[in-house]
Amino acid sequence: MEKEAREKLNRALSPRTVAVVGAKKDSNYSWLVNNKDFRGKLYSVQIDPNEIPGILELGVENFPSLMDIPEEVDYVICAVPRNVSPYIVADCIKKGVGGVTLFTSGFAETGTEDGRQFQERITLMAREGKLNLVGPNCMGIYNPRVGLKFSAEQPHSEDAFGGVAFVSQSGSQGSGFSTEAYNQGIGVSKVVSFGNGILLDATDYLEFFADDPETEIIAMYIEGIKDGRRFFQNLKAAVAKKPVVIWKGGVTEESSRAANSHTASLAISSTIWDALLRQCGAMNVHGLDETIDAVKALLFSRPIKSYPRLGLTAVAGGHSVEISDCFSLQGCKVPRLSSESYEQLSSFYSVVGGSFQNPIEGGGNWAKEENVTTILNILENDPNVDALVMELGTAGVQRTHEGLMQRIQTLKDFYSSSKKPFWAAQAGGTQRVPTELAREVSHELQKGGIPVFPNFVRAAAAMKKLVEYNRARE
Amino acid sequence: MEKEAREKLNRALSPRTVAVVGAKKDSNYSWLVNNKDFRGKLYSVQIDPNEIPGILELGVENFPSLMDIPEEVDYVICAVPRNVSPYIVADCIKKGVGGVTLFTSGFAETGTEDGRQFQERITLMAREGKLNLVGPNCMGIYNPRVGLKFSAEQPHSEDAFGGVAFVSQSGSQGSGFSTEAYNQGIGVSKVVSFGNGILLDATDYLEFFADDPETEIIAMYIEGIKDGRRFFQNLKAAVAKKPVVIWKGGVTEESSRAANSHTASLAISSTIWDALLRQCGAMNVHGLDETIDAVKALLFSRPIKSYPRLGLTAVAGGHSVEISDCFSLQGCKVPRLSSESYEQLSSFYSVVGGSFQNPIEGGGNWAKEENVTTILNILENDPNVDALVMELGTAGVQRTHEGLMQRIQTLKDFYSSSKKPFWAAQAGGTQRVPTELAREVSHELQKGGIPVFPNFVRAAAAMKKLVEYNRARE
Repeated sequence: MEKEAREKLNRALSPRTVAVVGAKKDSNYSWLVNNKDFRGKLYSVQIDPNEIPGILELGVENFPSLMDIPEEVDYVICAVPRNVSPYIVADCIKKGVGGVTLFTSGFAETGTEDGRQFQERITLMAREGKLNLVGPNCMGIYNPRVGLKFSAEQPHSEDAFGGVAFVSQSGSQGSGFSTEAYNQGIGVSKVVSFGNGILLDATDYLEFFADDPETEIIAMYIEGIKDGRRFFQNLKAAVAKKPVVIWKGGVTEESSRAANSHTASLAISSTIWDALLRQCGAMNVHGLDETIDAVKALLFSRPIKSYPRLGLTAVAGGHSVEISDCFSLQGCKVPRLSSESYEQLSSFYSVVGGSFQNPIEGGGNWAKEENVTTILNILENDPNVDALVMELGTAGVQRTHEGLMQRIQTLKDFYSSSKKPFWAAQAGGTQRVPTELAREVSHELQKGGIPVFPNFVRAAAAMKKLVEYNRARE
Repeated sequence: MEKEAREKLNRALSPRTVAVVGAKKDSNYSWLVNNKDFRGKLYSVQIDPNEIPGILELGVENFPSLMDIPEEVDYVICAVPRNVSPYIVADCIKKGVGGVTLFTSGFAETGTEDGRQFQERITLMAREGKLNLVGPNCMGIYNPRVGLKFSAEQPHSEDAFGGVAFVSQSGSQGSGFSTEAYNQGIGVSKVVSFGNGILLDATDYLEFFADDPETEIIAMYIEGIKDGRRFFQNLKAAVAKKPVVIWKGGVTEESSRAANSHTASLAISSTIWDALLRQCGAMNVHGLDETIDAVKALLFSRPIKSYPRLGLTAVAGGHSVEISDCFSLQGCKVPRLSSESYEQLSSFYSVVGGSFQNPIEGGGNWAKEENVTTILNILENDPNVDALVMELGTAGVQRTHEGLMQRIQTLKDFYSSSKKPFWAAQAGGTQRVPTELAREVSHELQKGGIPVFPNFVRAAAAMKKLVEYNRARE
């Protein structure tokens, strides 16, 4: 990517001025409303006299044309009908904007001759005009730091901001990732939904984020790529700089047809795809949950390079069996502890309604914070244990919020004095933890270096992913 | 099970009178408080003068001994220390109660000589006295219809009651199943947590529920069985009457050690276990989510006996790729529709921002209820389609509650006029649906015969389970 194009794209991804073209009452002026918390200057461009009063009521300044906006425009959101879109693209070029998102759809993805012709026309215009065109048929850019959004639920508070970039060929997956990352205590640098990606595609965003100082990890949802050789070259180069996690949509013959209808993507054999990803050192995942969990493991955990012998804890007996099942089924070991550990544990641990064989579980043994620290230190010092996993029991009925925060502090204090990897699971099975509480707990512990997973199954699967990823890279 | 024992056990499982022995301030009188909605008569037995005032304050009549209660007692919850438990067991026998749960722990599961001796002693007493002893080291019985509970969160409203019995060697898994079944719109007949199961174990409860007229499906969480031959004989007999779903905890060498610490269960080779379950015609699952999903598929769906060709719908393009991936990865087909279907769809379906190739997704096409009915009927009549799966998009931002209820009615009306299996998923990926809303939607649609799963991954896995289950039985 040339320096000039890169600088322009950087303006679009972290804009100070944004213009929405084509905001309409019919869609509740959603593009303007969604961006009411934008920290820069928001303009509207609309010529329909029926639409303008509603826009002004929102307190947004309106102009009849992009050209009339009395300052530089970093980012344009274009929500006009397809047939009008070439005129807006032309204005964007004239105005020298940082970039434009064509929310507009009805191009090649429809499979119609008409759609293909329109797509070709705007592609040529944008290429000649050196315009950073995002899309079409996409949702564009989310940047929590500047409060730029493409859906109302995307958060913009300080704890929504962090080191993960998500590059998505699908708007709904981009939107899903934004809110779920937040719910899971993961901070986002930027999300780009690029749809048909006629000018800038997965490869270009990969190249951009590899050198983006705000981004520590790149995650992607991809349905297809255009220039395979260039993509894999860029992927290799990006992986040398930071981890890349890729969720490929359309992995079967049946589903590649859906990908074709969605973003005009062509099928790639999943065997070849898997092999190339491994060769490039990227992490290969399926689905939103796996993407989130892989990001957590890579971003927060101390390195785990082979299947560890785990020291496990659980809130009750059934959960101690379940956590052992989950991790051992993924290849981890649940060893007996050292005789020294058992001696120490037996000096205070009540086995009435509990057990400390490993997992260490149940009874009233976990009520006191000093006990928790003692137990964790026993596991930390046990030569049979490589890493620790703890069931938090976040939604425990007898837990006050204050007690929970105290427990979090205990765990963070322990962790900062320890050397082994330490993971946590909110609960076993589907013990429902209220979303906001789960977010708070995850966010706090992850800041301290302890990745938190919703349940044992997901934590164990993520641990296997991390081990296999590290093995493949060595 | 003898007729007399069975009748007594029935009294314990659906009691009209319950006595709690050993309620204490220390545990906030939890056994009494949890049963404040019990629809029969609740008594307390306590001799400690320090504890009695608190019990009376709850409005519960207290007696110094079980023998003093002036009527028949159907069910006793015994929460006294281990060393006192033999005296209570003796009183239960004298009183001729229907059954007693020993919440008390500290027996064989501790691995101590002391614990084993106490366990032997109460086993002999109960056997001689023909006492239905549930436990020890367990939570006992939950019956939503009579409002009998072993944890505060277990629901007792009318929509909590239904045809699923859950038999659990673990209290926390029994408790987890109770609340999660409710959250997923599944009604429960009874849950039994039986812990060490020294007198009545998995086999006995299986035998009981096979003939329980309130129970349509039996689900179980088992860590170990005592008499394998009798268990599998009973399992075969039960499966001839109703479906049985079994989640086995402790399936690896590592985790069978945890099961031994928890309920003194011995290891069984998982290969043998899997083979025997298949031979008996039971459904083999791992984890709470799989258990819930299997129950849903068996309880609500029209039969699916081979991998179906699916007609899919999704709310957006990315989700249409994801739903196709999920189901095709599990062996289902996502065929092209008939030319007649395409003709009908093309007469009204807008492909700007949507597609109807199969999946049928996106655009404004789904806003009107009559369109929804039209689309579903096209799939119903398409000869290439065996079954339908729909993404509900329950948490869609522009959805009012009224609109959602209207949509549910549309789907139920369609279903009652159709013949093909029809499944639904709340959303793709982890699009979070508030728990209460998800429950309401699941409950309503499932009453109408449409099983609802939280997401595509779980729906697709459940479909595979159902097909494999039906194949194995044919």
